[in-house]
Amino acid sequence: MARDAVAHRLFNFCAGPAALPLSVLEQAQREFLVFPGTGASVLEISHRSSAFKEILGDAERCLRRLLTIPDGYTVLFLQGGARLQFSMVPMNLLHNQSGPAQYVLTGTWGTKACEQARREGPVEVVWDGAETDYDRLPSASRWNSSKNAAYRHITSNETIQGVQFPSDPIVGDTVLICDTSSDFLSRPIEISHYGLLYACAQKNAGPAGVTIVIIRDQLLQRSDAALPGYLSYREHALAGSLYNTPCTFGVYMLGLVVRWLEDEVGGLEAMDRINRCKASQLYEVLDSSEGFYQGHAQPDCRSLMNVTFRLPSDELDDAFVGQAESEGLCALRGHRSVGGIRASIYNAVPVSGVAALAEFMQDFQSRNA
Amino acid sequence: MARDAVAHRLFNFCAGPAALPLSVLEQAQREFLVFPGTGASVLEISHRSSAFKEILGDAERCLRRLLTIPDGYTVLFLQGGARLQFSMVPMNLLHNQSGPAQYVLTGTWGTKACEQARREGPVEVVWDGAETDYDRLPSASRWNSSKNAAYRHITSNETIQGVQFPSDPIVGDTVLICDTSSDFLSRPIEISHYGLLYACAQKNAGPAGVTIVIIRDQLLQRSDAALPGYLSYREHALAGSLYNTPCTFGVYMLGLVVRWLEDEVGGLEAMDRINRCKASQLYEVLDSSEGFYQGHAQPDCRSLMNVTFRLPSDELDDAFVGQAESEGLCALRGHRSVGGIRASIYNAVPVSGVAALAEFMQDFQSRNA
Repeated sequence: MARDAVAHRLFNFCAGPAALPLSVLEQAQREFLVFPGTGASVLEISHRSSAFKEILGDAERCLRRLLTIPDGYTVLFLQGGARLQFSMVPMNLLHNQSGPAQYVLTGTWGTKACEQARREGPVEVVWDGAETDYDRLPSASRWNSSKNAAYRHITSNETIQGVQFPSDPIVGDTVLICDTSSDFLSRPIEISHYGLLYACAQKNAGPAGVTIVIIRDQLLQRSDAALPGYLSYREHALAGSLYNTPCTFGVYMLGLVVRWLEDEVGGLEAMDRINRCKASQLYEVLDSSEGFYQGHAQPDCRSLMNVTFRLPSDELDDAFVGQAESEGLCALRGHRSVGGIRASIYNAVPVSGVAALAEFMQDFQSRNA
Repeated sequence: MARDAVAHRLFNFCAGPAALPLSVLEQAQREFLVFPGTGASVLEISHRSSAFKEILGDAERCLRRLLTIPDGYTVLFLQGGARLQFSMVPMNLLHNQSGPAQYVLTGTWGTKACEQARREGPVEVVWDGAETDYDRLPSASRWNSSKNAAYRHITSNETIQGVQFPSDPIVGDTVLICDTSSDFLSRPIEISHYGLLYACAQKNAGPAGVTIVIIRDQLLQRSDAALPGYLSYREHALAGSLYNTPCTFGVYMLGLVVRWLEDEVGGLEAMDRINRCKASQLYEVLDSSEGFYQGHAQPDCRSLMNVTFRLPSDELDDAFVGQAESEGLCALRGHRSVGGIRASIYNAVPVSGVAALAEFMQDFQSRNA
């Protein structure tokens, strides 16, 4: 049985909520009943207490260091997941603008974001990968180049199809908005290219319940005063993420995860090297399988986070998932909308877990090819 | 020093996020690294896994038993707190209706709910306690009785002013909506009187990050298909609270809290008896203090959850908070908008904690009167 350091913990390839660093879980467990200096659990303290404000401030400062977030950007910790951002982005940034919102449809999530934007204002689809079942990405030069867009929206990594932009796209003067939910904190990113980035936490950054928004301060002016209060970026920015009670435990866990990235991993470049190493192990098995494992994504846009592939039959897909599970390799079934296999190998999935999966894949092929 | 069973835990009178039952915290701590049968932390499992669906289903079933929720009502677990409900209620239930929304303003929260509703449609204030600084509640007979309201909104307990409806108000045929954030699960409630109830979890029901909505099924038809997806009750109901990833850890904790209420406390009638006993200890100190402690609320609408009062001077208020803290009685300062003292004595604050506070109050008075 493949197990990690703590007995009974298995290797977890879940697409999200996903694996968290063991040392983070252990620290949270140790101080679960009493957060140092408060006499209460971190779950039980006021979001306006000095202890929680320190947790929130530390999380933000560490995030700013890790991502080298320049001055002139505000960091928000919100609720509602990327789904609520699908609506908040156009409600704040498309209402009252002269040009349309432009959407790049690279998979399920980009398409869903676009659907919500259409409810709020004019939308232009500048690229749609539907024809090839979202197995590839556009090069920036192939994007529609009309100039007066309110913003352009991309999805940096599509968890279901397993495609990922290999680097920050260049879009000139257009305000670039990025749903970076599933590769946030997995590698360095050039924040200044973006007007706004958002990410739900439950892939690489923490537990479900917190959503991170990084927004260029100038864009806060677009939020109409008539917007519902909770849906206004400006309101949240004015209140320093304490417009109302945030998901305090989620913010606390996020703070521990960013500390782990900084202190134990050594920063985002180090994390990126590890993630590349993990992904290449699996893609090498695919590429040397002589077609037994058929990867979904075109090689130049393969995701380092979600490795998606199929076996020669649905029966073999099922057998693969079942046997992997009995070997302690969990949550490998592809998204219910597309089937097949998906190995999500986010930051906290250890190299040893990926190595165990690569070995299992080779073994499974030799028994079933 | 007043301490409870576990060393270093103090008595916590925080208004929210608030005290949680110690046995609940201990169980969550025990299974924090591995949720039974999953090989992973409850924080790390998919919201669509059978294990999480069981957690969600169990929490709902237990909540339905505790509150005797009749058929024909849907229970939702959402994010965004009561603040997002301030907008979701009118977005779903006021848009496209012929009559206005009616708001009963009994304190800070009712007033804030009303402000958000005004952004969505016509609003009629049917009662406003501003004149007497929100120290009392209307009797139903004194409410404006126009018939065609889209709904009437009340706040069952105002945490900042410390006033609470002593029982479910009767409003005839008007759809009654209740923000029950701060007394949810503190006593039995007649669900069938209400069209919709909502509550953030972080007072009596769990940690911050989960919001409970209980809605009469007929009202789901009012949700316009053009609403932003995350803001539609109908979408959440169709998806069984899995429209997107919920705050999974929050739902898990809520499940443990409702189990505690059922198995350890013995249900909501038992909880109500305990809460009455706790509150009466403090109000008796107020009433026998010969004016040293001046309660804010009129006696017939005193909150059983938040006991609000002042001492003869701001200096004495400060001294009270400081000395209480050094005795292990924490988070007693009144809300920053009104000052004074507030003792929040939600479900999980033990009788022994309240007794210790009552004793401290008498002692403080004898030293400072």
